Amino acid sequence: MARGRCVPFVLGVPALDSFPVRTWARLTARQWRRNPRNLMLPDDGAGYRPLREAIAEYAYTARGVRCTADQVIVTAGAIQGIALAARLLLDRGDQVWMEEPGFSPARAAFTAVGAAVLPVPVDQEGLDVTFGLGVAPKARMAFVTPSFQAPMGTIMSLARRLALLDWAASAGSWVIEDDYNGEFRYDGRPLSSMQGLEHPGAGQVIYLGTFSKTIFPALRLGYIVVPPGYGDAFSRARLSMDRHSPVAEQAVLADFIQEGHFARHVRAMRRLYQERQERFVALARRELGDSMIVEPAPSGMRLLGWLPPGVSDVRVADLAASRGIDVLPLSRLCLSRPPRNALLLGYVPFSHSETERGLRTLAQCLRSSEA
Amino acid sequence: MARGRCVPFVLGVPALDSFPVRTWARLTARQWRRNPRNLMLPDDGAGYRPLREAIAEYAYTARGVRCTADQVIVTAGAIQGIALAARLLLDRGDQVWMEEPGFSPARAAFTAVGAAVLPVPVDQEGLDVTFGLGVAPKARMAFVTPSFQAPMGTIMSLARRLALLDWAASAGSWVIEDDYNGEFRYDGRPLSSMQGLEHPGAGQVIYLGTFSKTIFPALRLGYIVVPPGYGDAFSRARLSMDRHSPVAEQAVLADFIQEGHFARHVRAMRRLYQERQERFVALARRELGDSMIVEPAPSGMRLLGWLPPGVSDVRVADLAASRGIDVLPLSRLCLSRPPRNALLLGYVPFSHSETERGLRTLAQCLRSSEA
Repeated sequence: MARGRCVPFVLGVPALDSFPVRTWARLTARQWRRNPRNLMLPDDGAGYRPLREAIAEYAYTARGVRCTADQVIVTAGAIQGIALAARLLLDRGDQVWMEEPGFSPARAAFTAVGAAVLPVPVDQEGLDVTFGLGVAPKARMAFVTPSFQAPMGTIMSLARRLALLDWAASAGSWVIEDDYNGEFRYDGRPLSSMQGLEHPGAGQVIYLGTFSKTIFPALRLGYIVVPPGYGDAFSRARLSMDRHSPVAEQAVLADFIQEGHFARHVRAMRRLYQERQERFVALARRELGDSMIVEPAPSGMRLLGWLPPGVSDVRVADLAASRGIDVLPLSRLCLSRPPRNALLLGYVPFSHSETERGLRTLAQCLRSSEA
Repeated sequence: MARGRCVPFVLGVPALDSFPVRTWARLTARQWRRNPRNLMLPDDGAGYRPLREAIAEYAYTARGVRCTADQVIVTAGAIQGIALAARLLLDRGDQVWMEEPGFSPARAAFTAVGAAVLPVPVDQEGLDVTFGLGVAPKARMAFVTPSFQAPMGTIMSLARRLALLDWAASAGSWVIEDDYNGEFRYDGRPLSSMQGLEHPGAGQVIYLGTFSKTIFPALRLGYIVVPPGYGDAFSRARLSMDRHSPVAEQAVLADFIQEGHFARHVRAMRRLYQERQERFVALARRELGDSMIVEPAPSGMRLLGWLPPGVSDVRVADLAASRGIDVLPLSRLCLSRPPRNALLLGYVPFSHSETERGLRTLAQCLRSSEA
């Protein structure tokens, strides 16, 4: 995404106007005042120790992830975490189950190390484990987004999670759990992570978290939780890729978490995003009626807008782009043809009037693409 | 390197006590006050535009690099720049000339994409181009550190630079110019970059710079300069690896360069490092005499300590490590056996008394390893 582009309905941008910028700036100034030498010295590949400790505690409390700080590797975001896991855990030719439709940067990371990526369909319960067992029972790895399937938004059922963990344990395979949007659940308490569901000692799950959605995208900080004993290998791999993340921001983030600002911000955003989703759905119904069906989602920062049969999502997105609206066609994320065309729409950072204007423009694009 | 370790004579740490921390903190606070939204939004893979502009200007003025901001890609440091170039410009099986001895993380980056790395010896004039022509005239790429050969510290002669550029132009091959320590030349004006020597329009050189040595290592910012027309491909490749570097630090660094703090700091460090090198050489002669020969170097932040024949650099380094002294054995950086054993010694961040104590400990280690 190009700089400065926060046009409706771009994906992946949180409600930046509601971020406690002054607190962040204050913690930053305090770190530079108290601790400058620490912020300048090289670190090891696993990241700044106090941040790793804060993450271990947070991930347990918020997401049921069981780990010590030694198992936490700070990354430059989810994509780098996937690349690290691919590099360390896969050999050329290894098979990987990949959600279809799915998160294309993950697919690219597996392909980059020479893995054979097998699309496994996603239904209402998430990844179709039985399908995977049928086509590639000995796959070395499975990639899933159980909290909010990217891009369909379905939440993986408990039965499927257990089936996937069972397969991984018996096949000796890895499960990459990208806990995308795990923080933003609107209809009750979220399911805890698969990492926390795993049989203690099994060690098949690599858990991925990111602060791009909960803090802000330009921070470029995320983390992976690896099984006991794997921390050093991941740390060395990170060193060989790009050393480590900048220390100053890790130190500020550690303070932000430890002093309770992070938990407070996530709670506030959960309420705000739920309100904004309700508003978006209501406005979309009013402005677009049946020409784009938007249903509420129990989680996440984006919604799907289903298009009438025969309307090309790519064509609508191109038209919208020419009028300053950024929507992602669902078909771009599918290797095979999607069941029905749809647009992915980010809704959380936009005001009432931005949303309204954006939806009106989109309605016009839909009318001209039907004509 | 593990956190907090700045023991004598660790490599790669600048004189942090002389860094203008207050200026940096002030510029950081100002960015967060004036510009918060900009620091939080996602960017494109090439990096923050004002920083790319500041780098293009600086690289021309200081290093004779000819480019526009479109050719500048901000990286998380030199290693990531090498990895990007390897990923985009090499195919599996391609041959790469690599300095021997050489910068092992570069070797690892080429190997990671399946390239065949060929060691090409380094002599007093730098990379032996004639040797390279003999063993692999059709290599796809050559990696060089012409300003300060890593680890030998020799400066590549003009004749060799021109020979390498001639070969690259006629073979259609790439030259990766890692301008390691290009800023720190003590015996006069440094040679300008090979990128600037290249025939205009040739476009065979990828130039790499880093701020790890000139600002501080934990910043994790560097850059590559690519030929015209290659910016978008490198930007997309960076997006697919880890998106982009954090924006806040890029914005602060842009201000730091544009407002003249950077040029002033580099000038001050050049004087300081020259003094510290003279002090180090004098103290080493006094404390170690003939048991470790340290000769002054015209450039860089480290020196070579040559050991008597038959003394193992690895053994001395192990002994030193057990006594809290960090030195790197030269033989660790060589695929083949080095002509003579030596230690690499960082000298710039240490006080007179730290240097003195460190050298005394090292003298004891040498005596016990000779015994």
